[in-house]
Amino acid sequence: MNETFNTKGTARAAVPSPLIESNRVEGTAVFDPSGKHIGSIKRLVIEKMSGRVVYTVASFGGFLGLGGNDYTIPWNKLTYDVSLGGYQTDITESQLKGSPPFSQDPGWDYADREHERALNDYYDAPYYWR
Amino acid sequence: MNETFNTKGTARAAVPSPLIESNRVEGTAVFDPSGKHIGSIKRLVIEKMSGRVVYTVASFGGFLGLGGNDYTIPWNKLTYDVSLGGYQTDITESQLKGSPPFSQDPGWDYADREHERALNDYYDAPYYWR
Repeated sequence: MNETFNTKGTARAAVPSPLIESNRVEGTAVFDPSGKHIGSIKRLVIEKMSGRVVYTVASFGGFLGLGGNDYTIPWNKLTYDVSLGGYQTDITESQLKGSPPFSQDPGWDYADREHERALNDYYDAPYYWR
Repeated sequence: MNETFNTKGTARAAVPSPLIESNRVEGTAVFDPSGKHIGSIKRLVIEKMSGRVVYTVASFGGFLGLGGNDYTIPWNKLTYDVSLGGYQTDITESQLKGSPPFSQDPGWDYADREHERALNDYYDAPYYWR
């Protein structure tokens, strides 16, 4: 898995890179606290001005029996784990199922601050804005 | 251009969103200080741990006669301009042409800190790491 992150067809030393290209984040695994593979990242949601990743859209379908829905979750609910080669989260299946519907809506309007407030409140995540 | 950022097939109010999904950053325009369209972003390079965008890979070919090469440039050399609907940079054509060759190498190994140092020094950009 590390090789996938570190090289792009080259044969350099397999030192784990702290960096990853956005087009390679898609598909990165998400694990639960016990290290079980529960989903994967589909895309990142970035604050344009600062360049900070504030949310991720992740797919948990097929792992939790959630029917393949995508869920928008606050970025800080994910922790990158080098040994797992992916992100770990403490979000539970029931939390995902009960999350605000717009977080599963591919047409979600990111300009709606009230929606964002509800999402961050739901996951007890700090607002990324002032 | 704003509509492209804000909506995904929905017809909501066209309030400029401060957020953008990673799969929609590709293709975002890059402008010079005078507002001239000089290139476009191909992908972002993200520090996995923090979720910060630290570099962008941008294509300037066709605009500066650089032969379509991609260049890795420090993220903080770009400033998002809402009115332009894209990123503005003060990097010049001659700077790009003289930049470290690895920044144009699609097989660039991001684990090589010395390469990163050279790149950031070249553009007089602060290191994003400690």
